[in-house]
This record gives sequence, C-alpha cells and structure tokens, in this order.
Amino acid sequence: MSKALNVTQKLIQSHLIEGAMNPGEEIGIRIDQTLTQDATGTLVMLELEAMELDEAKTELSCQYVDHNLLQTDYKNPDDHLFLKSAADRFGIWYSRPGNGVSHAVHGEHFARPGRTLAGSDSHTPANGCMGMFALGAGGLDVAFSIAGEAMYLKMPKVLGVKLTGKLPDWVSAKDVVLEMLRRYDVKGARGMVIEYYGPGLDSLSTMDRHVIANMGTEMGATTTVFPADDEVKRFMKQNNRENEFQKLTADEGAEYDVHDELNLSTLEPMIALPSSPGNVVKVREVEGKEIYQSYIGSSANPGYRDFWIAAEIVKDKTAHDEVSFDINPTSRQIIENMVKHDVMFHLVQSGARIHQAGCNGCIGMGQAPATGRNSLRTVPRNFPDRSGTPEDSVFLVSPETAAASALTGKITDPRDLEDLFGMSYPEFKEPSKYIVNKEMLKKPVENGKDVEIKKGPNISTMPDFEELQDFEVPVLLKMDDNISTDEILRAGAEVLPFRSNIPEISKFSFTVIDDNFYERAMEARDEYGGHVVVAGENYAQGSSREHAAIAPRYLGQKAAVAKSYARIGWQNLVNFGIPPFEFVNPEDYDEIDQGDILRVENIRQSIETGNSAELINVTKGTKYEVKHSLSERQREAILDGGVINTFKKKKAS
Amino acid sequence: MSKALNVTQKLIQSHLIEGAMNPGEEIGIRIDQTLTQDATGTLVMLELEAMELDEAKTELSCQYVDHNLLQTDYKNPDDHLFLKSAADRFGIWYSRPGNGVSHAVHGEHFARPGRTLAGSDSHTPANGCMGMFALGAGGLDVAFSIAGEAMYLKMPKVLGVKLTGKLPDWVSAKDVVLEMLRRYDVKGARGMVIEYYGPGLDSLSTMDRHVIANMGTEMGATTTVFPADDEVKRFMKQNNRENEFQKLTADEGAEYDVHDELNLSTLEPMIALPSSPGNVVKVREVEGKEIYQSYIGSSANPGYRDFWIAAEIVKDKTAHDEVSFDINPTSRQIIENMVKHDVMFHLVQSGARIHQAGCNGCIGMGQAPATGRNSLRTVPRNFPDRSGTPEDSVFLVSPETAAASALTGKITDPRDLEDLFGMSYPEFKEPSKYIVNKEMLKKPVENGKDVEIKKGPNISTMPDFEELQDFEVPVLLKMDDNISTDEILRAGAEVLPFRSNIPEISKFSFTVIDDNFYERAMEARDEYGGHVVVAGENYAQGSSREHAAIAPRYLGQKAAVAKSYARIGWQNLVNFGIPPFEFVNPEDYDEIDQGDILRVENIRQSIETGNSAELINVTKGTKYEVKHSLSERQREAILDGGVINTFKKKKAS
Repeated sequence: MSKALNVTQKLIQSHLIEGAMNPGEEIGIRIDQTLTQDATGTLVMLELEAMELDEAKTELSCQYVDHNLLQTDYKNPDDHLFLKSAADRFGIWYSRPGNGVSHAVHGEHFARPGRTLAGSDSHTPANGCMGMFALGAGGLDVAFSIAGEAMYLKMPKVLGVKLTGKLPDWVSAKDVVLEMLRRYDVKGARGMVIEYYGPGLDSLSTMDRHVIANMGTEMGATTTVFPADDEVKRFMKQNNRENEFQKLTADEGAEYDVHDELNLSTLEPMIALPSSPGNVVKVREVEGKEIYQSYIGSSANPGYRDFWIAAEIVKDKTAHDEVSFDINPTSRQIIENMVKHDVMFHLVQSGARIHQAGCNGCIGMGQAPATGRNSLRTVPRNFPDRSGTPEDSVFLVSPETAAASALTGKITDPRDLEDLFGMSYPEFKEPSKYIVNKEMLKKPVENGKDVEIKKGPNISTMPDFEELQDFEVPVLLKMDDNISTDEILRAGAEVLPFRSNIPEISKFSFTVIDDNFYERAMEARDEYGGHVVVAGENYAQGSSREHAAIAPRYLGQKAAVAKSYARIGWQNLVNFGIPPFEFVNPEDYDEIDQGDILRVENIRQSIETGNSAELINVTKGTKYEVKHSLSERQREAILDGGVINTFKKKKAS
Repeated sequence: MSKALNVTQKLIQSHLIEGAMNPGEEIGIRIDQTLTQDATGTLVMLELEAMELDEAKTELSCQYVDHNLLQTDYKNPDDHLFLKSAADRFGIWYSRPGNGVSHAVHGEHFARPGRTLAGSDSHTPANGCMGMFALGAGGLDVAFSIAGEAMYLKMPKVLGVKLTGKLPDWVSAKDVVLEMLRRYDVKGARGMVIEYYGPGLDSLSTMDRHVIANMGTEMGATTTVFPADDEVKRFMKQNNRENEFQKLTADEGAEYDVHDELNLSTLEPMIALPSSPGNVVKVREVEGKEIYQSYIGSSANPGYRDFWIAAEIVKDKTAHDEVSFDINPTSRQIIENMVKHDVMFHLVQSGARIHQAGCNGCIGMGQAPATGRNSLRTVPRNFPDRSGTPEDSVFLVSPETAAASALTGKITDPRDLEDLFGMSYPEFKEPSKYIVNKEMLKKPVENGKDVEIKKGPNISTMPDFEELQDFEVPVLLKMDDNISTDEILRAGAEVLPFRSNIPEISKFSFTVIDDNFYERAMEARDEYGGHVVVAGENYAQGSSREHAAIAPRYLGQKAAVAKSYARIGWQNLVNFGIPPFEFVNPEDYDEIDQGDILRVENIRQSIETGNSAELINVTKGTKYEVKHSLSERQREAILDGGVINTFKKKKAS
C-alpha cells in the first residue's frame, strides 16, 4: 500500500537515485534540466571544458545572459561570445543578451511540471511555481548535473502552507510572500521545502506563484513547490506549450512535516524595511517617508501583470518630480506584450525609465539610489549595499505599492489611491492575444563537438590539478577563527571581472589578510612545490564562492589545517582537491607558527584507509594528529586532486 | 546700403557686443540660451555657486542629464539631485534623467531660429539645424554665458555648401555628413562655420539637418548653420511651438568666404572606418566584414525617422544570431512615438536591446563591443577606445546600413536589401498624430534663491583662490615639451567620478609624471605657500579639461613657466588665475633644475603695466626674463586670482 504523497515527495521520489526520503538524510536525485546565468555560468563552462564533457546529458540545459549587460568594457561582451560558443560546444541552449531573466524565460519556454531543475542562481526555485523541483546550487554542482551526475542534498522537511481566502483589492502575490517572510524571517525555512496548497491557490496565477516561489529562497528554504493544476495548464497554453503540461497535485490525504495556514483575505500591503527581506511590517506603519526611487520588475515581480498594474496606476499621471521611476522588464517576450498592449506607453509617458530585460539594479548592475535616500523596489533582496550604494535604504514592496509611491513621492499604501485619485482597483485580464517569441533562444548547433570555444583575453582555462601527493611545505599563513571566503578571496568590482580567469583572480588570494600572499605563494611553489595554511575555528565561512578554493589551489595549496570548517567552504576545498584537515587536539594550533615547514608522509594511504593523518613539523621537530571527515565519494575526489579529475577518470574507464 | 548677409552673418551681427565681423578677429557675442549636460554641468554649477550668481541672465538655460545614467553606485544619482537643486537655485530648467540627449530634447522644446546657444557639449552645434548659432564651449565659458557675459571667439569664415539634387533610395542624412567628412577630414573645417543652402535642402527634414549639423563638430567647424525655412516651421509646429518660429534665410546675393557644392543625387551609402570619423569610404568598399554589433541612435541619428527606418527594415525578421542589435533612443518623446506607432514593437521583436534615452554607448557608458570584433554604429565618433573596449573597431554608418547589417551579420550596403529580402525603400511619412511630452522638463522653481543645493558626499565646493601675490617657491616639477592635459590630470574611470570634487581630484595631479606630486605639493604649500612648474614647448596641449588648471591651482601652483603653451590649456590657466609665463630666452629653461627656489617681486605691477616680469632663481643666484601675452581682460583675471573672482568683484561694485 503506497503512502499518500505531497507534491514535493512525488517529485523527489520520481528522481531518487541514492538514499531514502527521511528528512535530514543525504539523498541523490536525477536532474532533468539545468539553467546557468552569465555571472556564474562562465565558470560552469570552464568546468565542463576541464571535465572534457562530450555533451550535456540532461533533458534540457539553457545558458542565460541576464546579469552582466551593461558592457562598460570588453569583458561582458567577451563573456557573452564565450558562453554562446561553449553552449554550442556542449549542446546547451543559449538565451541571447537582453532576452531576459533566466527564471522568467525558463518558465515561459522550458519549465515542465514533474521535472527537476538545477540552476547556478539562488532564485532557481521560482520555477517551483509550475510543479517543478527547482534547486539553486553552486556552479560545480550544476556542471555535474549537466554531465548527468546526481545532485546530492539533505532530504528536506516539507512545510505545507494552506492558502485560503482571496486577495483583497490592492494586495498581490508579493504581499503574500512578504507576510511569509514576516513569519519566518531569513532563516526560518532552512532545511525545508515550502509547499503551498489549498483553495487560496485559485486566485493566484502561475506568475503570482512565481513571485512567491522566488522569494522562498529569502527564508532559507531548500525550494518552494506549487502543484501543477489547471492554472499552470492555462499558462503553458498561453506560451504554446500545452502539450508539455502534466498535472501534478498532492494525493488525497497527503501529509506535511510542518504546517502553516495563510488566509489571503486578511492580508494588506506589506513592506520589508532596510536591510533584510525579513524586516517586514505593514505599509501603513511606515507610510509617508519620502522616496528617491520606485523600481518595478526583476525576478521577484516578473509577470506581465506586475507591469500592467503599475501602468494602470500611473496612466495619464506623472511620476513625482523627485522620484526616479525605474522599470526593469523581465523578458523580451514581456516587453513585446507591454509594447503591444500600451503598458509600455503608459509607463514611459508617466516618466518611467525603461531598462534592458535582465537583472539590472536587483544585483547592483545599475540604477543605484542616491546617498541616504529611500528606494522602493519590487526586487527579492535588500541586503546592505546590494543596490550599489553604501549604507543604502532599500524597501521591498509590491508593484502596487511601488507605483502608488512613484506618484506621491513617498511611501504610500496603494489603497489610498482610491481617495487620492478616485481610482478603483483595476481588474486584470490576460491580453486576448499574448505574443510568444522564442527567436532569441538559440538551440545548440548540430555537431557541437566541432565548435571552437571563443575566449577573449580575460577568459582562461581551468588549470589542471595533480593527484594528491606527500608534501613538505611551509605554513604560508596562520589565521584566526572565522576567516571568511571574503578574506580568502575578496569580492568587489576590482576582483569579480576576473571570475573566468583563474591565473588573474588568484593574485587576489588572501590579500585582505596579507598583501604579499601571492608573491610569497609563488616563491613557496618554486622552492617547496606549494604551501599550507593554518586556521582556527569555522574556516572558510560566508559566501559560497568556489574561487576561494580554486585560487589557493592554483597557487599550490597542498592542504588546509584548521580547528573546524564552515560547511560550504569545506565542500569547495574537497571539490577542488585541497584536503581539509582538522586538529585532533585543538591546542596543537598554538604550537604552529607561520613559516614552519610541515611534512606529511603516506598521505594517500592515510586518506584511503583511515580518518587521520600525521603532520610533522620539520621546523619544530614535533608531530600533530589531524583528521578529516570525508565520505567515500569525497576521499576519492581528494585522492584524484578534485572532483573534476575523478569525473574524467571515470569517463575514461 | 547694407550688404547682403548669409545666415551665419545675420546670427552673429544680431548678437555682436564686441569686435568686428572680420574673419580671425576676436568677437564677443551675446548668448540667448545655454545647455549643460551632467558630465560637464556639475562643474558649471559649482562655478555658478562660486560666482555667487543670483539667477541665470539668459533667455533660457537648461540642464540635461544624459551622460551618466548607469548608476552603478551613488555618484550618478547624487549628481542628478545636485544638478536639479542647483538648476532650481539658479533659475535653470532641468531635464530629468532618461528624458534624453540634450541636443535632441533642446531641439524639440527650446531651440529657436535667430537665437544663440552655448552648450558645454561639443555637439551643441546640432541645433544649428534650426537657424540657430549654436556653440560648443568649455564649462566656465558656459557658466559665464549663464551669468550674462559675452562669449568670445574668433570671427569664423563661412563655408557655404550648396546642396542640389535629392537623396536616392537607401541613402540618408548620415551619408551626407560622412561625404563631407570624406572631403574635409577631422580638421578641414577649423575656423569655419559650415552653412548649408540650396535646393537640396527641400528633401532634408529638420532632424536630417540635425544629423548633419551634429557632425560638423567632427570636421573641426566652429558650428554648422542651416536656414530656418518652412520645414523648420513644420517641425516646430509638430512640437506645438509654431509661435516661436521665425524665418531666417540668407539674403539674396549673400556671399560665403569659401564655397563647396554637394549633389545629393550622386551619393551612396558611406562608412567611416576605425578609428576616425574622417576615414570615410563607400560601404561597397568594405562590405562583407563580419560584425559583432549594430548600434542605432545617439545624438548623431536622433530623429524618429532614424528609428522608424530601422524598424521598417527589420520588421518580421530576426537580427543575425551573432549580432548584438542595440537601440539607443534619443528622447523620451521619441520613445513614446516609437511605442505608439509600433516602431518599438518591430525593433524588439526582431531582437533589439532597448536602452535608456541618453548618450549611452556613444561615450562608452555601456554596450562596449567584444574584443577584436567590429561594431557598426550611427554615433558621431569612433576615436580609439571611446566605445570602452581597448583597440576597438568601430565603424560609423547610417541607420539604413546598420539595420541591413544587423540582419545579415556583416557590413551590408542597404541597397542590397532589395535583392536579399525583396524590399523596396520604405517611404517615410510623419505620424499623423505626433506625441509631444514636456512633463519631464522641469521649470525652475519660484524663489530659487531659497533653494538649498544638495550635495552628496562626493560633491564639494569650488575652492576660493586668492589674488595674485609675489612668491618665493620651489620648482616642483620640470617637464619636457608637449606635456598634455592628460599628463597634468589624467582621465579614466578612476579619476572622472571626482570631477565635482576638487580636493579629491587634485590628488591625481601630475601622477602620470610623478606619483608623489600630491604629497610634495602639500609639503611645499606648508613650507613655502605653494610651488611653480617649468615646462618646454606646447605645454598643456590636448583635451580642454578645466580640471588640469583648477587642480594644480588648488595645490598651490603660483605660476607656470614654459617655452610655449597650447591655446586652450593656456586659456584655462588664465581663467583659474595661474600666470602662464613664457621664457623670453628659451635657453633659460636649461638653467633651471627641479627643486630650485624661484622668486618674483612686484608681480602685480609687472602684470598691470607691462608684458614681462623677472624670475629670480634664489638657489642659483641667477635671473630670467619672462613674458606673458595677456589681453586686458585677462590681466585683470590674473590679478584677481581668476575670472570667477573678477566676476564677483564686478558684481559687488
């Protein structure tokens, strides 16, 4: 007798390759589709190249170009040509620059109920709106998905949110997810999939659900899932893809691990205050504050309706004198519909500044607010400085609230438009003829293996890393507790442009801690063949940046030795073949000085057969016991010099 | 008996305040209107503030925001708020960000036949298309125009170009001016006003003439002038300004100093090769080269027709896979018309990327081409690296050629569209109802004197400079011949953002020559009260950058001593109160070493009464005779410590 399953469980069960569906246990699932965007995709393509992949093994993979569109120099356009040629090489679709945000375009043309999707973008879960299991992941994970490998994750709990009632006038999907963020804050859904169900779904369109699924990421959720119901069928039909629809709903009597309920009828306009998506209050509580900017669009309010409602609100009116009214369309297809159905006309006539379809200001690529001024945005995040302006003051709102505030010049509850302008809430109807345009999505060419990958001067190749070997090398850096990946390899405008150029970006390794690290590492590589670093607790915390492992490895890092590690940083070290040793006796940390020479003998045997190794301090004449906690899969990767080598070895055999 | 006058002479005569209309002689003319854009306007506003101006004395002044729209951090938006508040303070109109390129918007709403216009943008002559005398000028010159002072220039010769015939199909105004550039190259019209006349005018609309007038700048012309005829009346009527029209044509029998003739019927599509607008050949001669980009719009092809023809060409087709098809609309009003009349629809549907109305890629603010790839652009300039990409390969073409090439992916003569796609040349008709929208042009507020100027953290105040005094200071730098303003104060992304911040930008003074100049200047200021610099021939050549005088002055530069000076650099030194001394005996240059202490006594008397002064080398115990060639006006400025001080003194008395 099979148990009644919810949508999440059905999606996982149908793709399960390893493990069992017990919350907290590691499972491996098959990935049907992938998406990559340009900011992370360049490294994914270099990884595929290093893996010597013949051809994508997925049902469908698509490379989008949505982040770096400003092209203030050659680096962005060179990346675009590189990505197009690499997509052709590996049998991956290519969405041309300006064709729009990955999530929305994928939803229009590729997302399918019942499928799994891995994307190198944290908002990939947005396509959970269509009964899909859509996971954000690191670049290398997505590269392995493209290569047909399983995706590993901890089996999540399922948080079932029952939606009842119907959204009142002037309240929309963004207010729903802001209410969820008010309840769960930015960490409350960690280890969980949020699955929405119940009669309240009837009044939420697929793109409304996209808004809600997108920002599940902000609660720390593994992903968000909606059923594939008649509304999803309607949406797919609108995009000429009715034939790809399949119904996917929870079984009668399906259960959830955690329960919540949200009565849509009781909602009112909500707003996230600076500088966290979790700082949510009612708009009423902060209304009246003057604003510099009203910014509508992005992955978090991507639907045609979201622009349509803004246009209806500002129609025949003019944006307030002091407001920069910015429109960030989501996709070329939506722009075409906006133009055809006068949405664009009303927005432009009211004073809107129209930007390219893409991520734009949401990730600080343009339209930063003025110093000390308030910016109202429909984007998913308002973390400090994300807008590009130091100590910014960004509020997250619905398109209704943003448009109302654009007119008044201050934070305005859109319900006040009834009194202020004698408006009643415009009732949305889908355009009778919705334009579908797939022309800017390029199918991979035939005979991709013959395609030469185009590399501009700033695009290198993934370096070859050798197998694990014994070493006798100096401790090049001794660090304290809580060293973050920002200290290992800092972010920022000076460094990020080199993300496709390992030799160049490696020059910034550890510069936050030691300006001469690169020169010293080069010397140590010449003299000793490499170096190690020693750190305290929680080494490599923070951002999941893979470069924080690749770059030190490129400089000859033979091992890291620390009291403990942060999870993702630890995983990245393993992936790129740097053994992450831990002190068995933490007090040994105090015995080692920067400059000491450390030796390890029989390291391959230690890793293969046991959990510990011996570190010989040649300088001091002492020894320390160190351990690792590698799984069998990971031991193999470390021995091979990284997972890419393991992949190549398997492929060859 | 009055002589028959051409349009140029009429415009100058009706505004002549000083001098006589003899070519080569200095004249002073009254300026009716000014325009400033944001990249140069911030300094103009700081200068007006330093001049303690009450209110603009012009008939009309307008501050545009068209260059810096990308807003990758707080500096652009802070500048916008500063400019808006300063415009209000001084009684200047303000064109909101995204409202479009100054020249086109000014033409739509403000330019008037028979008036003079000074603009802090080199393409200001574009409005010569409407029977206006429109001059590009330095920021301080425009500040003085706003303050009601005369504009000084050398009386130009008038080059009369007789236009005959009618443009063939697939050939348009851009080809006309490219043909002119083929004839005159980038310096051939220096010291001249280009005045077009003749029966060929009948087939050129006002915006066609705008194209031609805009790029007169590329030939080095003082400006370009067209008559104000019935076509200009039609254009002004279309913009609801028929009442501001006045006819202005050359008198019967008017003469020109120089003559040329151009038969439009004989023209064919032309193209300027990299990297100069003067490298013009026929498109046929270079057809077939693969392109990365087709870029349509900017100040050099700003008219509605220019976008319309591109849309007609690409309608129901798709831009070539390998081409970035970029559309840079000129003004919000033109966007509205493009949207209303399906021009935008056809462009977007064919794959175009639509950008904000503004200068954009034309000045390297976005949409840079990929490394080593060809970019076809309708912009006015293709100087090396201007696109943002080092060693770029930019070609200048008409919208017809750009659109045809966008479809084929290679440089294509648009006449080939007849065979390739069975097209005949679309005949342009003005839209029956042309939308006019002045909402984003903000009239200055009443009571501007009460307005507080808003300054973000990167906007300073013009420093106060003291009157000319005797000095005894070290030679802080001894330089060779041909030192350019780029060496005095370099350009580039690191420096330009500080153009509204004199204390900050001054730190970059002379860094190209000496990395420690700023520190040494600070020491000399503390110890001696300042410094002097010594240079060879042609000092301060190159770009007209005013900062190359302001910044050294801010660091305490008491005088420059050189063998000779470049004209504009010399003028800027005078304007900001640095006496530009010349060696009477050039061999004295060799006698001075860096570090020598130079003394000047009775300097005020020397400047007031004579043409020479004595420089005492305290270190060497020698003396040198130096001279200057200041006019009376300039002597006063030098004595006062700069023209701003002179202005304030006069205003007070």
